[in-house]
Amino acid sequence: MTLVDHIWQRCRLATLSPSRQGLGLIDDGLIAARDGRIVYAGTAADAPSALDAKQRTDCDGRWISPGLIDCHTHLVYGGNRAHEFEERLAGASYEEIARAGGGIVSTVKATRQASTDELVATALPRLDALIAEGVTAIEIKSGYGLELATERRQLQAARRLAGERPISVRTTFLGAHTVPSEMAGNKQGYIDKVCNEMLPPIAAEGLADAVDAFCEGIAFSVEQTAQVFSKAKALGLPLRLHADQLSNLHGAALAARFGALSADHLEYADEDGVAAMARAGTVAVVLPGAFYFIREHQIPPIEAMRRHGVPIALATDSNPGTSPLTSLLLTMNMGATLFRLTVDECIAAVTREAARALGLFEQTGSLDAGKSCDLAIWDIERPAELVYRMGFNPLHARVWRGTSHPASSRT
Amino acid sequence: MTLVDHIWQRCRLATLSPSRQGLGLIDDGLIAARDGRIVYAGTAADAPSALDAKQRTDCDGRWISPGLIDCHTHLVYGGNRAHEFEERLAGASYEEIARAGGGIVSTVKATRQASTDELVATALPRLDALIAEGVTAIEIKSGYGLELATERRQLQAARRLAGERPISVRTTFLGAHTVPSEMAGNKQGYIDKVCNEMLPPIAAEGLADAVDAFCEGIAFSVEQTAQVFSKAKALGLPLRLHADQLSNLHGAALAARFGALSADHLEYADEDGVAAMARAGTVAVVLPGAFYFIREHQIPPIEAMRRHGVPIALATDSNPGTSPLTSLLLTMNMGATLFRLTVDECIAAVTREAARALGLFEQTGSLDAGKSCDLAIWDIERPAELVYRMGFNPLHARVWRGTSHPASSRT
Ligand SMILES: [Zn+2]
Ligand SMILES: [Zn+2]
Repeated sequence: MTLVDHIWQRCRLATLSPSRQGLGLIDDGLIAARDGRIVYAGTAADAPSALDAKQRTDCDGRWISPGLIDCHTHLVYGGNRAHEFEERLAGASYEEIARAGGGIVSTVKATRQASTDELVATALPRLDALIAEGVTAIEIKSGYGLELATERRQLQAARRLAGERPISVRTTFLGAHTVPSEMAGNKQGYIDKVCNEMLPPIAAEGLADAVDAFCEGIAFSVEQTAQVFSKAKALGLPLRLHADQLSNLHGAALAARFGALSADHLEYADEDGVAAMARAGTVAVVLPGAFYFIREHQIPPIEAMRRHGVPIALATDSNPGTSPLTSLLLTMNMGATLFRLTVDECIAAVTREAARALGLFEQTGSLDAGKSCDLAIWDIERPAELVYRMGFNPLHARVWRGTSHPASSRT
Repeated sequence: MTLVDHIWQRCRLATLSPSRQGLGLIDDGLIAARDGRIVYAGTAADAPSALDAKQRTDCDGRWISPGLIDCHTHLVYGGNRAHEFEERLAGASYEEIARAGGGIVSTVKATRQASTDELVATALPRLDALIAEGVTAIEIKSGYGLELATERRQLQAARRLAGERPISVRTTFLGAHTVPSEMAGNKQGYIDKVCNEMLPPIAAEGLADAVDAFCEGIAFSVEQTAQVFSKAKALGLPLRLHADQLSNLHGAALAARFGALSADHLEYADEDGVAAMARAGTVAVVLPGAFYFIREHQIPPIEAMRRHGVPIALATDSNPGTSPLTSLLLTMNMGATLFRLTVDECIAAVTREAARALGLFEQTGSLDAGKSCDLAIWDIERPAELVYRMGFNPLHARVWRGTSHPASSRT
């Protein structure tokens, strides 16, 4: 007799297991967990016969997927930019807003003024919105400090969030997000500062699980990005890249050349870049929320990604300037509606492929024995409903590391 | 001393009062209600000095708007179309789906098979999603029966919803939605049936608060729509119209000619139609959820509506085929992002103008003495946040007819 902590039975599974086809669907499923890990996920018929459980949940035919993973967010920041959004709709140009101290400058200013406590407190409602939809792991970037003290505080706040809520948090240092206004006109000087003064202590303090940069005409060049990447690699940190969002600087190829975990956005990436990503195993993280919010028209090269077998992840890109989005379900709908991803691709994109983008696929992102027992249990008739609906949350319960958290009633 | 039931104090108000400019903002506000009606809404300083209340709520500086109003929905139906959505993304054409019994035909079939209880039960989660965002009044159309018995059952289900939840429901008979498949090729015969066999009993039974039709190449002609409108008018029922969504049939002018409460969609409406609506006082209900979901490119003539002074309302158009949307907050964001409505226009569009579209503006839609005390109380710093964010619900509490319903916690 094997004693486990918890068995979920009479459930249908979207396992996302790489050993199965498509979503890895199982009709009459069962999941058993011990010490926060899955010990069995599969058909009830094939389950070990001698399983006994301290706790059993009858799922009444509900669907279970891996807990959702939001693999690209800027969730921690000061202030918000609703005012600027309002002014732009009333006719103000980006230039007028920038001249009035708006844009990213205003977020940097507010973030620098915020204490760690304030950063945690203002991020929590956003995190709660994601958690309420079944998110069990999230990536959070710095990048609104643009100086060591504030970048550090952002990352510390991100780490603190993991203590405030039952969720896994992966942090990413994005010092190379933009040039701070006090160094305007001196991009290279700022990149040197990122590499020499910021990255080493951030790495030494264990505050970052990865390093990201914004490679774009309005941000940093391929050479400057490569400088940051070389330094990060030397410090042993995995890489990610904001690549080819507004123009094709061959960021996809750059990310691949450095073996980055992911290249993100990719609206203007070309076939060569996609092919390089495939060879390097770099995940494409596409971000339809930003595409929608800034009214972009160029769609990422999804067909080329499919042809070359690049894994495609979806994320909210939650940030105050270009994607004030805190729904991964809506992100899936946008992935389907705006980028024509299929239902299976959308669901894989916020589970299995998102885990890959974070370098976490050994630990989560599919329902497989040995992984963390991170589940989302849904009140739906078929997985497609997760993608099809807009502004509707069918979460029944969320399980993080084996512990169940029922969804709150919604009226 | 005047005794009232409830006072909300230390609040900021977006009154939407027609006697004030813009959103009718009040910084240090107070609302007093008695017997479910507002007896005072204005500055605390100007409030009658001798007000005493059985209950007082300190709003701690929170914003209060009128309860939101979703003035165009098809919320009651059988089945759902997630499967079809999935097939279309996988490459199936609309024709292939229609040949396989998909499209509206499948919804009609499922609705005909559903009992009133089932229609109520399946609509409730959708209604709850709207209520959770502060909706206090909703319009619900029939139109998936296309025969008397089922149209009646849809409207009865809509009426029943008003008993199941604290919300005002307005019903609309939309028998002239499409031709039922058993009468394919005989549009005129079906319109005659709508006018002679369906409308009279529906009106006599008091099941419909208004009558709607779908005037479009793929649905009914201007003449057929006029026939339905004439009959409805003779029966004393107000009118609404699905107009100029996919092509310009001059539906806007038709709606105006009949003095309709609203003309809805309007992507292809022309300046003459808009001018006619202005003269008739017909509200423009624009539906960005459907625009987004079907990937339409033609934007309604918002600038002409502004120029002519046509009131603009926004609604979810919640329906299984072209707008499986149950968030009025997201609808506002879509109105701003996709249609370039301003923040003030978006907020007015789901309160004051939505009330006008339903012929309810005497009773709700603004914070004015004498109206129903329908409020949404928000955890925001400025009204623009209601429009700016995507997939985030800052509702603190909802008040319907003077009774407060706190928002559920969201984790
Ligand atoms: Zn980003
Ligand atoms: Zn409609």
